[in-house]
Amino acid sequence: MTFTRKHLLGLEDLRHEELIEVLDSAREFRKVLDRPIKRVPTLQGVTVCNAFFEPSTRTRLSFELAEKRLSADSINFATAGSSVSKGETLIDTVHNIEAMRVDMVVMRHGSSGAPVFLARNVDAHVINAGDGFHEHPTQGLLDLYTIRETMGRLAGLNVTIVGDIAHSRVARSDIWGLRAVGANVTLVGPSTLMPVEIEKTGARVCGRLEEGLDGANVVYVLRLQLERMQSGFLPSLREYARIWGISRERLDLCAPGVRVMHPGPMNRGVEITSDVADGPESVILDQVTNGVAVRMAVLYLVRGGKSIGSPVSPAAQEGTQA
Amino acid sequence: MTFTRKHLLGLEDLRHEELIEVLDSAREFRKVLDRPIKRVPTLQGVTVCNAFFEPSTRTRLSFELAEKRLSADSINFATAGSSVSKGETLIDTVHNIEAMRVDMVVMRHGSSGAPVFLARNVDAHVINAGDGFHEHPTQGLLDLYTIRETMGRLAGLNVTIVGDIAHSRVARSDIWGLRAVGANVTLVGPSTLMPVEIEKTGARVCGRLEEGLDGANVVYVLRLQLERMQSGFLPSLREYARIWGISRERLDLCAPGVRVMHPGPMNRGVEITSDVADGPESVILDQVTNGVAVRMAVLYLVRGGKSIGSPVSPAAQEGTQA
Amino acid sequence: MTFTRKHLLGLEDLRHEELIEVLDSAREFRKVLDRPIKRVPTLQGVTVCNAFFEPSTRTRLSFELAEKRLSADSINFATAGSSVSKGETLIDTVHNIEAMRVDMVVMRHGSSGAPVFLARNVDAHVINAGDGFHEHPTQGLLDLYTIRETMGRLAGLNVTIVGDIAHSRVARSDIWGLRAVGANVTLVGPSTLMPVEIEKTGARVCGRLEEGLDGANVVYVLRLQLERMQSGFLPSLREYARIWGISRERLDLCAPGVRVMHPGPMNRGVEITSDVADGPESVILDQVTNGVAVRMAVLYLVRGGKSIGSPVSPAAQEGTQA
Repeated sequence: MTFTRKHLLGLEDLRHEELIEVLDSAREFRKVLDRPIKRVPTLQGVTVCNAFFEPSTRTRLSFELAEKRLSADSINFATAGSSVSKGETLIDTVHNIEAMRVDMVVMRHGSSGAPVFLARNVDAHVINAGDGFHEHPTQGLLDLYTIRETMGRLAGLNVTIVGDIAHSRVARSDIWGLRAVGANVTLVGPSTLMPVEIEKTGARVCGRLEEGLDGANVVYVLRLQLERMQSGFLPSLREYARIWGISRERLDLCAPGVRVMHPGPMNRGVEITSDVADGPESVILDQVTNGVAVRMAVLYLVRGGKSIGSPVSPAAQEGTQA
Repeated sequence: MTFTRKHLLGLEDLRHEELIEVLDSAREFRKVLDRPIKRVPTLQGVTVCNAFFEPSTRTRLSFELAEKRLSADSINFATAGSSVSKGETLIDTVHNIEAMRVDMVVMRHGSSGAPVFLARNVDAHVINAGDGFHEHPTQGLLDLYTIRETMGRLAGLNVTIVGDIAHSRVARSDIWGLRAVGANVTLVGPSTLMPVEIEKTGARVCGRLEEGLDGANVVYVLRLQLERMQSGFLPSLREYARIWGISRERLDLCAPGVRVMHPGPMNRGVEITSDVADGPESVILDQVTNGVAVRMAVLYLVRGGKSIGSPVSPAAQEGTQA
Repeated sequence: MTFTRKHLLGLEDLRHEELIEVLDSAREFRKVLDRPIKRVPTLQGVTVCNAFFEPSTRTRLSFELAEKRLSADSINFATAGSSVSKGETLIDTVHNIEAMRVDMVVMRHGSSGAPVFLARNVDAHVINAGDGFHEHPTQGLLDLYTIRETMGRLAGLNVTIVGDIAHSRVARSDIWGLRAVGANVTLVGPSTLMPVEIEKTGARVCGRLEEGLDGANVVYVLRLQLERMQSGFLPSLREYARIWGISRERLDLCAPGVRVMHPGPMNRGVEITSDVADGPESVILDQVTNGVAVRMAVLYLVRGGKSIGSPVSPAAQEGTQA
């Protein structure tokens, strides 16, 4: 096994072979999701705590489903009403969860670096489910997975990421992951929303959308967080849609066979038009399905790839009843 | 099988035989609830998302228990903190849930018609757990079930529904269901809370409580939503209790052997007195128990009545340990 | 079996032999937590509702995990968005839960006495998970358990409880439990936070910390609830930390081999310094681990100690796959 990490904190320091191993494992788990009984005993006896210090629906549901499909035991907590608001430190909160004999912590946190900090200080496996503006590594992995399955390869592809790069943990994880597997990454968006020195990642920065889309095999549309408007980063939604929104006619600027992706939730009519979101180029819902498989692979691999029997053969007691 | 619908959206268009099939199935599942091990493998491998866009305790718990008793996998989300508040459309939210390979969506929503709209646009089975002032079909079914089990029949019975008919999705589902099985429905309540043209459903409208209770075999007391007071529909709680509250002496106006029902939660001392709520005529807690069995039947039937082995025989692995 | 109670409402009226039986059972369940597959079929088929009318993270997670380890079915509800806010009585809420064929209710409530009141009026087993300023019996039991495992005995030990005794349900349960098993209890804290006539419990009250720590085998540090500051009970946090905070040098006043406990969540730097919290005397995380085992024992014992096979032998279907 190539992937021997105890945690998944970000894609920045993952090597090419490690990324590929996650994608290959995910492909096996992806098959499980198309079976009538979508459950394998891989993580039976393993307890996972989904600790969401920031609201989330889709990522939380996706992790919960991945855990159920693997037969893990899950417990959940969200910040509201938790001891976090009682002045306890993050490490104490997680030490407590660990002391209850929890093996893995899936953590979303509003502060960049919280999962890294945690991983240094606790024994449990930590999986970053999104931290501040830093990384969202399982999103990055599911994006890589979806591109590879859709286009048949990753190396040499032109991927253009459009929108608010500065506030996007998704963009950061995608950039690191795509660069590591040899894709060309172009970033395009308002200059107020473009982080300084982002070219150091190896991505190319474009100031004009038309230029950024030219030759793109994949257009990755970022969600425009509406609160950016109030912070003075942008003049108006209509302006944003007109200048940066991905419409069908703008897709004509891209390479033939272009595919469109979005991490969700979408603001239809703002960063993406409905005909693109629902059009033949869109693989947005594939991303969601693949997300469950990728998270199953990550949960499996950080545990050392150990499982009860074959990781993807059906649970014994269920097999007999099927 | 008579019931071949993919969704349960309301009782308005259910035929007599369909309603009876649900009640007959529920009777089988009701037996499961009295066993020491209250679990059958009927929906093993099926994933259900309980999507509550409006707060609910009892309906949510009842569905969750029904799903557990059927060995389904459940995931839950409530609006607070969901992407709904991030400007995503309802269809996108549910498409995402579906893409995670969820088979059924149990939905409560504040807007009338949301489940109907959804069912037209997604592949998953949709079960309406209450939408706006429109319908609450599983409540209607558990009410029919409770009446049939209590009185031995439905056809020809006189059922009087008392209270705020206009804002009650429960009343609407009860009216459609009761009419379809041949019961006589009388509606009684303040004229400000009586919807126009409600007689078109075949129900009789009475302006005076005494007249409405005369000859009633079942008195169905609706919850008075206290916020109606502030909206100017009603002068005061005390006034409401005096004129429309169901007390023991008012039960004397009904037919012998009358039964009292309420969908909960009750405002004791307002729409119902405590001696009636706790008295021998009350089948209010039976409604709650039956609700789990009826929801099991609905979850089973919309899936096409397919199950692993007999729908109500105990789970194999649990049977061997019992 | 000595423990024949149907509920666990408080430690005040538990006899010595009953307490010991809970601790002995907990020791058996504690072993389960160190197994690779931490699950036994003891409460298979039993349904537990965790009804939290007050926010809680750690106690709720600990109970949920205890229930999962015992293979019980759990449903959860928290006050926010529940029918409690719709004016329903507590008894009606719980009658409804019961009517859904729930066997046990684990209840946290802000009002002292709510679980006692409930236990008199419902059929389900009631376990008090903390009520007002009254009791938190499973915390008391896990404290007893931790002291016994750490020190090898309970009788004759000197246990000093430091802090806001008046507002602490933990202190009350600890006092009752420790007195029943023959430990000597000393209470020390600001006089504004010391309940009147507390000596009647058999505990000794000290006005000075140094005197209270003299000869202590266990120092039990209570959490300082920060809202007490606003209510005028205390001048300032810094003042509290200086006068009542447990620091390393103050531990020197205690008996050799002293152990430090805290119910969590901790305010580091206020009631306890970080070097003590993380030091060799601290058994704070042991308390958390033991909490799961103690709650498993309580859930098992209030059900009459009946189980499927040996209470702590592994689940059959899981054993075969391990």
